[in-house]
Amino acid sequence: MSGHAASVHRFEIRVRYADTDQMGFAYYAHYLRWFEIGRAEMLRSLGRSYRAVEEAGTTLPVVEAHVRYLRPARYDDMIAVETGIERLARASVRFGYRIVRVADGDVLAFGGTEHCFMMPSGKPGRVPPDLAALLERAPRAAGPPNR
Amino acid sequence: MSGHAASVHRFEIRVRYADTDQMGFAYYAHYLRWFEIGRAEMLRSLGRSYRAVEEAGTTLPVVEAHVRYLRPARYDDMIAVETGIERLARASVRFGYRIVRVADGDVLAFGGTEHCFMMPSGKPGRVPPDLAALLERAPRAAGPPNR
Amino acid sequence: MSGHAASVHRFEIRVRYADTDQMGFAYYAHYLRWFEIGRAEMLRSLGRSYRAVEEAGTTLPVVEAHVRYLRPARYDDMIAVETGIERLARASVRFGYRIVRVADGDVLAFGGTEHCFMMPSGKPGRVPPDLAALLERAPRAAGPPNR
Amino acid sequence: MSGHAASVHRFEIRVRYADTDQMGFAYYAHYLRWFEIGRAEMLRSLGRSYRAVEEAGTTLPVVEAHVRYLRPARYDDMIAVETGIERLARASVRFGYRIVRVADGDVLAFGGTEHCFMMPSGKPGRVPPDLAALLERAPRAAGPPNR
Repeated sequence: MSGHAASVHRFEIRVRYADTDQMGFAYYAHYLRWFEIGRAEMLRSLGRSYRAVEEAGTTLPVVEAHVRYLRPARYDDMIAVETGIERLARASVRFGYRIVRVADGDVLAFGGTEHCFMMPSGKPGRVPPDLAALLERAPRAAGPPNR
Repeated sequence: MSGHAASVHRFEIRVRYADTDQMGFAYYAHYLRWFEIGRAEMLRSLGRSYRAVEEAGTTLPVVEAHVRYLRPARYDDMIAVETGIERLARASVRFGYRIVRVADGDVLAFGGTEHCFMMPSGKPGRVPPDLAALLERAPRAAGPPNR
Repeated sequence: MSGHAASVHRFEIRVRYADTDQMGFAYYAHYLRWFEIGRAEMLRSLGRSYRAVEEAGTTLPVVEAHVRYLRPARYDDMIAVETGIERLARASVRFGYRIVRVADGDVLAFGGTEHCFMMPSGKPGRVPPDLAALLERAPRAAGPPNR
Repeated sequence: MSGHAASVHRFEIRVRYADTDQMGFAYYAHYLRWFEIGRAEMLRSLGRSYRAVEEAGTTLPVVEAHVRYLRPARYDDMIAVETGIERLARASVRFGYRIVRVADGDVLAFGGTEHCFMMPSGKPGRVPPDLAALLERAPRAAGPPNR
């Protein structure tokens, strides 16, 4: 715990017409797409793309996902996905996310996804050492917002 | 009719190419679309479409969603969404879902969504009496599978 | 060629909240998803699923797509995708589609997709004889509506 | 400024896992989403967002779309959407697009979308003068690639 934690990874995305529904809000499933973008860009910022992780033989299928929706995202809003690691275990990793509206900093949603490490055999296994080393350098998730 | 719960509502959907990703599985966000279809069809089976609910002035925005993924759904699989009510409160309702592979009955995923009742004013409020009466007649959610 | 052409293949789909945008219409890209469903179900009706076609070694990537939008599809509308073959050549096939609103029979959109035959080598090639025989039994596309 | 056309508008997007299908390519409908992003960003570069256009009372529903697919886009590819105006008429506007792979400049796809001008009444009408002035300053579409 000495030193200091890396700050959370942040990546900005614009809400598109394709994302909206007739309520005028971003449809609730699209947040999982934004979470995907957040963790892919966080990995890239650590020096390895998720494409490279897959090409090296390990895929990270999602085993659990949850989202808490606080305020709607609307067409043309700029949002930031803030991504960090909630927990890294031998056979799974959990990412945490916040969706923040760039204009005013309001937290629109938060959530998490848990992944196993799928080996080339198609079975889950232990995190490969080089991937573990990469993930240990990742920022920690921010957790639910104080409201 | 006293004494036993209605059986869970079941609606079949086919996994489309549009739903797959390069892992060969249905992309994880699409399960939330399937949950939407499940609750819309369950409401319809009770005698009122969600369109009619909205036209009567109440929308049910999602405030929380979670999914637990057990086994992948693959291209052209027939899946059944089994939907029920987990909890009906004065200001919120929680639906529970199972995604079942029709070919062998395996549970591929389960989860839930929680909704508030948004009034024409744009603010959350109490469930309107006629909608409460409708939801009270709904089947109960099956809960997580025994594994 | 004596006798009469098979009638066009028809498959019904409901417009979901996920399909709508903030204009209250189905978002324009979803029509290509509906076209996919139309051609997959037409193939199935001829006796072979597209999954089986792929497993036998031939994929049909799209090389061209077009859609003409006449009237909007709206949330909860039942639509029918009417699918037929516009043209079958040695190295390509062209499907034609109409999107019809079930409630009143209005044509909401029409269009077409052209596909090549991609061999296991990853290169385009000639249509395999058994697939050609299958596609020759397909209904002919209806063409643009008379307006 | 007399005498030469503005260069085409260019906006970069990364292909996400959500965009891929089991062939390992970006699913064909997503190109229409990319076209939407291209025209929205081109308008923004001219000084007005499409959100502002809608708020001023005019929507631009799509009446026709077509895409020609030349080479697949793959997971994690950076692509550029190049957007311009193909034709501006009193009652319609046509945008042209190219999807270019950033790594090597290859054109992956090209296409166009035609839009009418929908008035607050819900009927199509003439392009409002200020929007016409804006669109007249737009770059011209590049047209199909030389191959």
